[in-house]
Amino acid sequence: MSERREVPGLEPTRVVPVTRVSGGDVSRTSDVAAAEEPLDIRLHGRSFAVIMRTPGEDRALAAGFLLSERIIHSADDIGAIEHCRHPDQTKAHHVVDVYLVGDAAARVPQLLESRRQFIANSSCGVCGRSTIEELAAGIAPLPAVGSVHLDVIRSLPERLRARQATFDETGGLHGAALFAADGTLIASAEDVGRHNAVDKVFGSQLLEDTGVRSLFSNSGTEPVPQIENRDLTPGSPRVLMVSGRVSFEIVQKAWLAGVPVLAAVSAPTSLAVELADRAGLTLVGFVRGQSLNIYSHDSRIGGV
Amino acid sequence: MSERREVPGLEPTRVVPVTRVSGGDVSRTSDVAAAEEPLDIRLHGRSFAVIMRTPGEDRALAAGFLLSERIIHSADDIGAIEHCRHPDQTKAHHVVDVYLVGDAAARVPQLLESRRQFIANSSCGVCGRSTIEELAAGIAPLPAVGSVHLDVIRSLPERLRARQATFDETGGLHGAALFAADGTLIASAEDVGRHNAVDKVFGSQLLEDTGVRSLFSNSGTEPVPQIENRDLTPGSPRVLMVSGRVSFEIVQKAWLAGVPVLAAVSAPTSLAVELADRAGLTLVGFVRGQSLNIYSHDSRIGGV
Repeated sequence: MSERREVPGLEPTRVVPVTRVSGGDVSRTSDVAAAEEPLDIRLHGRSFAVIMRTPGEDRALAAGFLLSERIIHSADDIGAIEHCRHPDQTKAHHVVDVYLVGDAAARVPQLLESRRQFIANSSCGVCGRSTIEELAAGIAPLPAVGSVHLDVIRSLPERLRARQATFDETGGLHGAALFAADGTLIASAEDVGRHNAVDKVFGSQLLEDTGVRSLFSNSGTEPVPQIENRDLTPGSPRVLMVSGRVSFEIVQKAWLAGVPVLAAVSAPTSLAVELADRAGLTLVGFVRGQSLNIYSHDSRIGGV
Repeated sequence: MSERREVPGLEPTRVVPVTRVSGGDVSRTSDVAAAEEPLDIRLHGRSFAVIMRTPGEDRALAAGFLLSERIIHSADDIGAIEHCRHPDQTKAHHVVDVYLVGDAAARVPQLLESRRQFIANSSCGVCGRSTIEELAAGIAPLPAVGSVHLDVIRSLPERLRARQATFDETGGLHGAALFAADGTLIASAEDVGRHNAVDKVFGSQLLEDTGVRSLFSNSGTEPVPQIENRDLTPGSPRVLMVSGRVSFEIVQKAWLAGVPVLAAVSAPTSLAVELADRAGLTLVGFVRGQSLNIYSHDSRIGGV
């Protein structure tokens, strides 16, 4: 629809650098990733919800979201709905201001109060960059040690697939698995939720007390690398393989768990690529047959 | 892993009835759907988060979730983590009780307070059934009027695909589109978030003031069918087509917007099927070539 073209900064894609491996050929080129950015939906000037979305159709998204959340019933409840009028367009693009009328307007103070504790203080300024900086606070980047050979990465989709028993039955589950650098399976899980499958994998390791330990430190303001994490042993990085696409949250989970290589059958979002770069994490996408794309820190992939 | 087998009620799949169409053959049979049920993660006896998940590995999921949310740093922070000890196992299966120790335990009261407003009052009793009853409160079931011909449904994946310009570029976006009963495109959208794509479609209709109106009524305790919704015109139901899988939330959005037919390229979850049945909504999955599965209210599909 037309909104994308009219407003600069609301493009649905971003160009990202990539190391493309196709059989024996390796080329450093660029790829187009689906854009992922936070959108702050405000009611009467105050933040109501921040959701990750692909820019474009933001007013429609805000209206549909409020419909789904049962905040509004029809167009009649909306007095005005528009992008924030902040003079800095790069900030204003990620905020939609909504003003309700009538009965819906009367409910706004209570709605805001019930969410007050939950919404971070976001001025007219939420964006992918601020999201990454917020996530990075208190987490040390992963040290650039160790490597995983290209041939191991290529073998992982099949190894993951072999663990997806419930997917075989239903066609309806995401899969995730943790592997050693030589391709040995450490743990796997399935779930209707992409994030849950990853949480189950890391959670199972944590419960087995195999040394999984969050890299996040909230004991002070300085990032503290927790090198007792086994995954940071020089020379033997672990690899998380997921069945679908990679959003920034999957990268965040791998980073927090200290797993420095993340591979996926499908595409990463723009924010996943940016966060992986910042985290010192090697992000590999489109692992299919003899081909794969390395979006960040390709030095950890041997044979390239 | 072993948990699934040991605890009845934690199976990762459910058997659901289905009307299977394959070319000219129609058979009423059963299918296996990925189970989707809420899990209540409690800290020190109080609800901290309710997440939709596939049952099984619930303790690992809770531990991994708390790691991702930066509530815990390692296994050392966990004193105990187990399913609720409620004598009614069908309820207890959907609650994991977590007790933290040390510094992590000291942060619990503040954590709970910050989420207090957000978490519905859930005793040891959250489950798919209660989720559906909660959703159904105040929404009228969709009236069983009108039909869409099988051949129109079969044509929709290609029509949706033709609108997925950004997917073509990136391979990384979900698509959703609203069609008239004759297959005419009404609106379409793409997003990294499956739910966002649907919200954008309904939101765009709402902003164009084409009569989209939520079926939800909070003006009283009685469900009030809002038949001024165009989608409920006898004989011309609209159809929402989505590119991927169908969770219960997608069914909920279609129901709220009064769209009585929902079709998907891939699989529905168990809760999506149950909610569609309750909503009077026709849910169609695995629309591929000449084949498709109708999971609920097949009377709306002509030619079956």
